[in-house]
Amino acid sequence: MSDKSTIIVFSGDLDKAIASFIIATGAAAMGKQVTMFFTFWGLNILRKDQYVPTKKSFLENMFAKMMPRGPEKLGISKMNFGGIGAKMMRYIMRKKNIASLAELMQTAKELDVKIIACAMSMDVLGIKEEELIDGIEYAGVATYLAEADESNHNLFI
Amino acid sequence: MSDKSTIIVFSGDLDKAIASFIIATGAAAMGKQVTMFFTFWGLNILRKDQYVPTKKSFLENMFAKMMPRGPEKLGISKMNFGGIGAKMMRYIMRKKNIASLAELMQTAKELDVKIIACAMSMDVLGIKEEELIDGIEYAGVATYLAEADESNHNLFI
Amino acid sequence: MSDKSTIIVFSGDLDKAIASFIIATGAAAMGKQVTMFFTFWGLNILRKDQYVPTKKSFLENMFAKMMPRGPEKLGISKMNFGGIGAKMMRYIMRKKNIASLAELMQTAKELDVKIIACAMSMDVLGIKEEELIDGIEYAGVATYLAEADESNHNLFI
Repeated sequence: MSDKSTIIVFSGDLDKAIASFIIATGAAAMGKQVTMFFTFWGLNILRKDQYVPTKKSFLENMFAKMMPRGPEKLGISKMNFGGIGAKMMRYIMRKKNIASLAELMQTAKELDVKIIACAMSMDVLGIKEEELIDGIEYAGVATYLAEADESNHNLFI
Repeated sequence: MSDKSTIIVFSGDLDKAIASFIIATGAAAMGKQVTMFFTFWGLNILRKDQYVPTKKSFLENMFAKMMPRGPEKLGISKMNFGGIGAKMMRYIMRKKNIASLAELMQTAKELDVKIIACAMSMDVLGIKEEELIDGIEYAGVATYLAEADESNHNLFI
Repeated sequence: MSDKSTIIVFSGDLDKAIASFIIATGAAAMGKQVTMFFTFWGLNILRKDQYVPTKKSFLENMFAKMMPRGPEKLGISKMNFGGIGAKMMRYIMRKKNIASLAELMQTAKELDVKIIACAMSMDVLGIKEEELIDGIEYAGVATYLAEADESNHNLFI
């Protein structure tokens, strides 16, 4: 039995991001080698929360401005109501002492979960390396597929 | 080759719920041992359709009121138009003699598909055990991961 | 280790369709035998772009009119703004010399990716075989499950 797990994180919604990291950190805690491959809207989870000046085209700038920057800015996939739903979910989780997305991401790092940002999606959305958090890798679909080939647990979220 | 299959049902949309149960019952009918792990909005699929009085906080009550109760109340993920799309889909399926979601869920039970409600999501959304249908289990991500580890077929829906 | 890969394409969004075909063609290029199973809104990806007259019921006609016909008409899952987002994404990809969805689909064909349209979903949505592109197969969930059973890489998109 393989001891690897891969998760493609396509979604940039807070609820799906939380689910991804709960699965990833859980699997890593059980001794699995976990790779998370962030693509399209999922890249927003990896964005630094502060603004990073970069050279962007007009359209890239539009995308960048409209997309959320990091875990604290993400909306939820249902009942978001312009961010109120996401705020409520963050508030409830804090009150119930459930780890926040930022804390889950920190745990993932400590458990050596491999975080890969999809280079092609970064190109499409105009996201530069300096806008993303530190300690991650940049690669394409071939790298993901090589990891997936050795995994018995593959998810697309 | 493993004879197990696991499905995480994150979505609470009628169309995705139907897809989940068609895959689950199909796999079970082929002799696979199937585990469905319901989390976040997916929990709404497992809610009893009648109102169950429970002690809830203000925010939990808000979530509970706004979320659909059971298979007959779910919307579809596209072209729902305030529930009209979902009604149309239910009507068409009935007319074409395709099993409804409630019937698929009954079949899943008969085929011994294991239904697990995610305890942490229940806590976040304020859903209590007595609000969910009978004959299901309650567990966390570790239980899911243990099942997934023995499966060669894992999906996130 | 199995050399098969299966992808259920449930979503009919341009961004998710692109992701599906990038993964599928990448896996096929690496020598994997890839099966894509198109169901529900995913069927729209396989629709011919020109109108094909067919006998439809009133409701089937409504669905058919409201659903996009083929790769050039699909919207994106986030920030679509009535199609503007999708247009922007297509424009950016063309400018950056990234293969379009239509080109990815052509590559998939050349790499012998097996494309299956879900017969039950076609029935529900009232889509007829002559409305879908050539060179594809029609089958049900049992066919999908038989393929998935031999695969070590299964995704639901």
